[in-house]
Amino acid sequence: MSLTEDQQWLNVRLRRNHFCKWLDLRVIRAADGEIDIFAPWREEIVSNPDLRFTHGGVLATLVDTAASFAIATRLGRPPQTIDMRVDYHAMAQSGDLVARGKILRLGRTIGSAEAAIFDTANRMVSSGRATFLVVESKPSATNAAGTG
Amino acid sequence: MSLTEDQQWLNVRLRRNHFCKWLDLRVIRAADGEIDIFAPWREEIVSNPDLRFTHGGVLATLVDTAASFAIATRLGRPPQTIDMRVDYHAMAQSGDLVARGKILRLGRTIGSAEAAIFDTANRMVSSGRATFLVVESKPSATNAAGTG
Amino acid sequence: MSLTEDQQWLNVRLRRNHFCKWLDLRVIRAADGEIDIFAPWREEIVSNPDLRFTHGGVLATLVDTAASFAIATRLGRPPQTIDMRVDYHAMAQSGDLVARGKILRLGRTIGSAEAAIFDTANRMVSSGRATFLVVESKPSATNAAGTG
Amino acid sequence: MSLTEDQQWLNVRLRRNHFCKWLDLRVIRAADGEIDIFAPWREEIVSNPDLRFTHGGVLATLVDTAASFAIATRLGRPPQTIDMRVDYHAMAQSGDLVARGKILRLGRTIGSAEAAIFDTANRMVSSGRATFLVVESKPSATNAAGTG
Repeated sequence: MSLTEDQQWLNVRLRRNHFCKWLDLRVIRAADGEIDIFAPWREEIVSNPDLRFTHGGVLATLVDTAASFAIATRLGRPPQTIDMRVDYHAMAQSGDLVARGKILRLGRTIGSAEAAIFDTANRMVSSGRATFLVVESKPSATNAAGTG
Repeated sequence: MSLTEDQQWLNVRLRRNHFCKWLDLRVIRAADGEIDIFAPWREEIVSNPDLRFTHGGVLATLVDTAASFAIATRLGRPPQTIDMRVDYHAMAQSGDLVARGKILRLGRTIGSAEAAIFDTANRMVSSGRATFLVVESKPSATNAAGTG
Repeated sequence: MSLTEDQQWLNVRLRRNHFCKWLDLRVIRAADGEIDIFAPWREEIVSNPDLRFTHGGVLATLVDTAASFAIATRLGRPPQTIDMRVDYHAMAQSGDLVARGKILRLGRTIGSAEAAIFDTANRMVSSGRATFLVVESKPSATNAAGTG
Repeated sequence: MSLTEDQQWLNVRLRRNHFCKWLDLRVIRAADGEIDIFAPWREEIVSNPDLRFTHGGVLATLVDTAASFAIATRLGRPPQTIDMRVDYHAMAQSGDLVARGKILRLGRTIGSAEAAIFDTANRMVSSGRATFLVVESKPSATNAAGTG
């Protein structure tokens, strides 16, 4: 864990999220517009039990979370996800993963960020990008939902 | 549950998947190229604990799963996901969800399907589409991973 | 051409766009949240000269335009595209095309719409969806660009 | 133009494509898995005639073409596009553009590549990624179409 004292809030914020907490995600590095998130292996995230690779929905969660928290490093909070694309490059076999997120463009209303997921052999198993609503809005007034 | 005896394998296949089992997903309707999957509420899928809506990664899992199993109704097995797009239309607040998947195009090598997710008020909270590798391939020879 | 007098502005607006005019696109049907756009064949939109199918970029233009003008039927103007996904289902061989757009969700800030493209044999050759910024914004203040 | 003699085929291949020729696209740099393509301004690619920015469909064409030709540097030919995502980051105002493509993953059946488009001020106006079918297939047997 190499977060500065000023960056600890990212981890606190991440783990207030029930699903991220269940996945036991942890922010392990943060910089301006960039984030690394660690995802430990757990048996419940297996997809096909014979081939034993990680479920694509869990990889999508990591892309969404890393992209969202890359924006959080600059915005001060994770924004709402509007839409997301995820590419599956290779089977992510049983083992810990690291998701690296990076801002593509942060505007006043809309932001976008990309993320890539690496296995313990540092092979990119999945990557993707998402669009976020960065303007603060009342829950009832929004028309998008996401990681926030 | 309105599956015919011939359709029971879809549910058996779905629930062999550890992550789908943990989410307690169930196939509740199947037809040629179409599927409805039920996702019961559980506290661990909450995203923001104050606003209490469902995590975008769980919705992405439902899009992936419903799209994949729509293809399974015709292919006889869920195919591997190559890539996926998910749109978040509205916050999915605490409550059960239904994901409806439908084939867009099923070719010999590649297939695509779309899915939409509805809350208990039958409001579409999320939708998306995915591309799948439908040719059977040895795990070591593939370059895509997914729900299979 | 089956546009009512009240719908003629859609065609006028579409054809003010230089690229849509060069492609000779025409709105042939409009309803609340829905639009049909006709794209006549022209030799310059061929991709591979041996196989003679329509370039994927032209099909992407049709998805963008039909999705954008589906929103225009309700918004009164085409919105700015934030991002888009296009799926290529089959080769679109030399011949006229029709693109059908439909709103998925229209919020106050963000909207999304889908579109499908059909050849003269009514085969779906391509389809996709896009996210739009629907709030009116000064050009200098925006962070997205598109069909508008 | 800084192509070696061995790389000239990329430009010849690109310009056999009618739509790329009409857009007057030119390969200006190529390396293993990477390509830079130059797109000169022309009046017909204007979208909104008042704001005078480049049409999103033309930017999508550049993303598709740069991603496809990034794969061509290794494959020896541009592959067929299966699907594509394009993000519009800023309005691309009148002026020349450069599209830079880069392979994300090249497998035996499927490949993926990303591309970003820069204006004359070197500002990233758009970016995206696409999935390609890289196995050679008879036109009649394929179920995807694209830049090839």
